Amino acid sequence: VPASRHSIGIGLLGLGVVGSGVARILDEKAAVYASRVGVPLVIRRVLVRDIEKERAFAPDRSLLTTDPEAVFGDPEIDVIVEVMGGEHPAYAYIQRAVETGRYVVTANKEVMAKHGPDLLGLAQQKGVDILYEASVGGGIPVISPLKRDLLANSVSAIAAIINGTTNYILTRMARDGMGYSEALRQAQDLGYAESDPTNDVEGFDAAYKLAILASLGFHTLVHPDQVYREGITAITDRDFRYAGELGYVIKLLALARREPDGLRIRVHPALVHDEEPIAKVDGVFNAIQLEGDLLGRVLFQGRGAGSLPTTSAVVADLIDVAIGLVRGWRDRLNWVREGQATVAPMESLRTRYYMRLTLADQPGVLARIASVLGDHSISLASVIQKEADESAQTAEIVIMTHVATEAGLSKALAELRTLEAVVGVGNCIRVETTV
Amino acid sequence: VPASRHSIGIGLLGLGVVGSGVARILDEKAAVYASRVGVPLVIRRVLVRDIEKERAFAPDRSLLTTDPEAVFGDPEIDVIVEVMGGEHPAYAYIQRAVETGRYVVTANKEVMAKHGPDLLGLAQQKGVDILYEASVGGGIPVISPLKRDLLANSVSAIAAIINGTTNYILTRMARDGMGYSEALRQAQDLGYAESDPTNDVEGFDAAYKLAILASLGFHTLVHPDQVYREGITAITDRDFRYAGELGYVIKLLALARREPDGLRIRVHPALVHDEEPIAKVDGVFNAIQLEGDLLGRVLFQGRGAGSLPTTSAVVADLIDVAIGLVRGWRDRLNWVREGQATVAPMESLRTRYYMRLTLADQPGVLARIASVLGDHSISLASVIQKEADESAQTAEIVIMTHVATEAGLSKALAELRTLEAVVGVGNCIRVETTV
Repeated sequence: VPASRHSIGIGLLGLGVVGSGVARILDEKAAVYASRVGVPLVIRRVLVRDIEKERAFAPDRSLLTTDPEAVFGDPEIDVIVEVMGGEHPAYAYIQRAVETGRYVVTANKEVMAKHGPDLLGLAQQKGVDILYEASVGGGIPVISPLKRDLLANSVSAIAAIINGTTNYILTRMARDGMGYSEALRQAQDLGYAESDPTNDVEGFDAAYKLAILASLGFHTLVHPDQVYREGITAITDRDFRYAGELGYVIKLLALARREPDGLRIRVHPALVHDEEPIAKVDGVFNAIQLEGDLLGRVLFQGRGAGSLPTTSAVVADLIDVAIGLVRGWRDRLNWVREGQATVAPMESLRTRYYMRLTLADQPGVLARIASVLGDHSISLASVIQKEADESAQTAEIVIMTHVATEAGLSKALAELRTLEAVVGVGNCIRVETTV
Repeated sequence: VPASRHSIGIGLLGLGVVGSGVARILDEKAAVYASRVGVPLVIRRVLVRDIEKERAFAPDRSLLTTDPEAVFGDPEIDVIVEVMGGEHPAYAYIQRAVETGRYVVTANKEVMAKHGPDLLGLAQQKGVDILYEASVGGGIPVISPLKRDLLANSVSAIAAIINGTTNYILTRMARDGMGYSEALRQAQDLGYAESDPTNDVEGFDAAYKLAILASLGFHTLVHPDQVYREGITAITDRDFRYAGELGYVIKLLALARREPDGLRIRVHPALVHDEEPIAKVDGVFNAIQLEGDLLGRVLFQGRGAGSLPTTSAVVADLIDVAIGLVRGWRDRLNWVREGQATVAPMESLRTRYYMRLTLADQPGVLARIASVLGDHSISLASVIQKEADESAQTAEIVIMTHVATEAGLSKALAELRTLEAVVGVGNCIRVETTV
């Protein structure tokens, strides 16, 4: 231990759910961490928006400041821990931290997905590093395995459930027959969903995380805008009931795969057969499956969000950085970009589909539907009539298709909507397999 | 890149299933790895027992040698990759490698379990390191997550299926109603079991791996002799049938837990409810569940053995070492021992039990059994009469107990064996939960 290092000074940006967890655990486990690192980890400054706010845990009030310069100007701060979330001002703060020669530990998926490569390049220039294990999968180790343990592999596919909020909502809908709005309200009451849930339920959060995983796994640069994205707001309790009767659950999947025409990267709801391991990942749990040429498939599963699991990843990164500072490491294993990402157009996707249609109760309707689908090379695996509404003279049917192209499916759906006998297209959901 | 390093020289010890996999992949993926490391990874020497032997893949014949001095004496060798297996002479070779200032990458669970701490201490003195990700769980990252990603946690429990051979045998018995001998023969025919299967079926291999995981996870020193161990040879197809009827499967579990009277560390067959994730880990797959105070439970699952998955871990370690050599790293994150392991005596274990007994078909027998069990504070959760043998006038019953102590159970079993009405104790298997 160099004589000059009697402690590692931390500047904490944010004191919300994760920030107060980090502060509390650094306090409670100070002796253990000091022994693992060699010197104590000491919070020097905490940047907050409101000093007076009530918090689950707060360090000494004298450390709290609303002035970023009080943090960046403190020469005793070696590491900035950014747990504010959101793109701005976190991005500028991380940049500032790196420019002033600080290591950064962050849980910020949005900043790392949008600006990670630039920030990591800057960090390399400045001889520091940015660690971001907590940005994906909460406490589940996945960034670090991708950086190190899969280095011998060529990663061909990623399949994941990486948004705890939507997985909680979908699990309540599946288990308790709740509608979407009711399940969302429950998630909000329990603190699993924010008052404006857009970021989670529209799949933005999962798309950020998938962009990070795909960039690391494929050694390329995937911007979140390149991730095809659909949220869960159109899923109804009826879709869950029908899917369940067919032996499927509905999950918001994050999928990435190398294909001949480019990387196929997407976040959308999907029917998954209930016997697949990923189908059993319920509630706020996350699961990430990686597929490599040597390794085959490896699945990581655990608590993907929440104060303590996220703190687990943040503090692991922090201890790693601190040990490196104490021992004078100059750098560490890092992401190497090996090529440019070409993203395959969604139209060329080949998969199976679940379709729920409301049809006029007339003879010959099904034959017309099948004929439209057949015109676009979509063949039917099964057709089940679910419910008839006698007063409206309509019937609801569920179609499961064989493998078809997304382009064909879109055209077929457009054509079906023009048929007088098709009263409505209730939903159309992709059917995926992860095994 | 220092001008002096134009390549990383490798001495490969062993050219069996794993060794020839490593050699083949280093050859096939040479360009990718050279780009990830900065310089090529070059095999300089391969130590074998028999140069003439037919192999799946062998590097240039001129590299093969039967003389260890040809390897250790080669100044162009920076890293020794030990994939011979077994304690001797691998232990001496790893020691020799470290003493001569070489980094070591090994897949050897027996050497690392028995001598890991000594070897790692020696490596630290010599300014090198020993990496052993491949020693547990094949290609599944688990050593590296324990060394780095769980650093913020206090690990309280480990539950794992870490022997592919026995899991294959037990899976065949469960699925196909095979007897033990037949399933073992099938595993041998497929190359999953050795001609002398003792190491796997008696639980030695799993005990080595669990000693490694427990030492890392609990930051202490667990010798494999401290692991309580029972193999799978006494499990019958009948046990599988009865367990299945009760909703359980039988797995060889590796379990470690911090308890008030010490570490409880054991490898033995167990009934696991078929709804638990670990119950669904079949065939040669492995699963490792770690439980930490911050993280909760995290589960890693994948191919735990085989040439390519093990190669995946060996080459990841090798690339990590090689990048460090190229960049001049002096050391890396490593295992820190924080205390002495006290192992809790098996007698104080509290768990549930499955018991299969053959009883004389007489009135009042069950009452006597229940009374003996009750004398040792063992209460019955269920008793089911399975089969009666009318000619022998015996009946087979299966008892599931509530939680009892191992000490009470042993005494009760000994007493039951003295009863005239107890014709035989077919089997007694612990019932465990991992969720």
